[in-house]
Amino acid sequence: MLYNTPSFSHEHFMRQALREAEEAFAKDEVPVGAVMVMNNKIIARGHNQVELLNDSTAHAEVLALTTAYQVMGSKYLPDATLYVTVEPCLMCCGALYWGKVGKIVYGANDEKNGYHHFTNQNPFPLKTEIITGVLAEECAKLMKDFFKAKR
Amino acid sequence: MLYNTPSFSHEHFMRQALREAEEAFAKDEVPVGAVMVMNNKIIARGHNQVELLNDSTAHAEVLALTTAYQVMGSKYLPDATLYVTVEPCLMCCGALYWGKVGKIVYGANDEKNGYHHFTNQNPFPLKTEIITGVLAEECAKLMKDFFKAKR
Repeated sequence: MLYNTPSFSHEHFMRQALREAEEAFAKDEVPVGAVMVMNNKIIARGHNQVELLNDSTAHAEVLALTTAYQVMGSKYLPDATLYVTVEPCLMCCGALYWGKVGKIVYGANDEKNGYHHFTNQNPFPLKTEIITGVLAEECAKLMKDFFKAKR
Repeated sequence: MLYNTPSFSHEHFMRQALREAEEAFAKDEVPVGAVMVMNNKIIARGHNQVELLNDSTAHAEVLALTTAYQVMGSKYLPDATLYVTVEPCLMCCGALYWGKVGKIVYGANDEKNGYHHFTNQNPFPLKTEIITGVLAEECAKLMKDFFKAKR
């Protein structure tokens, strides 16, 4: 007997990205998490590991992307959706651009380091769909709590 | 007896970046090369390995940067200079921004994928010094030859 794969909501996958962000928080990393989804399935996960890897490029999105490339055996992922808890920075936008990731869903805005702070232009391919504000409050709260504890 | 370290020119280090770009060309990768310099010494080298690594983030600058982080044991490199044969893309600008790389020297402009195509704003920290056009013709010629051969 064949069952249909249940269709999950953006909130469902953003919760998974939030779990990654919480893991970053627990490791004293800036709490950003990401999951890469294809055909309603998570194919890669990542959370910020800049401190652990001593590498300023080790953002959640980049780690999820590079894992997804290896999983899929492809350096282009037009059918994938990236869920990330916080607005991507310029570096991560560029990485998503090169990977031709079809859809990007993010939670909280990042007024300081988000890409909107650095450009008024669309840094993605024209086809790329952008969805914002999914579980924004929860995603932002994690960041606020982290930086509050650091002060 | 103590000798002074000779002071090398921008052209000297750009030639080293060009050697990296030529290595990329020989491996059928888009011919971009980079070297990271500190105190007049090359601390890391990189050339584009997107095809080999099947990873759209494996640009020359990113590879040189991540090597330099490991070599220096630091995720910030304010005293380093990055030499790269072609104008960095948005992803690489973001990576250089996060690494606080003090000086960026590039050769040829990239009208299609260079960062100037995506933003009118300065994507780097205010302190970052940018020098352009070093051995520009040689750097551009390598790219033109590569894409001509692909057609």
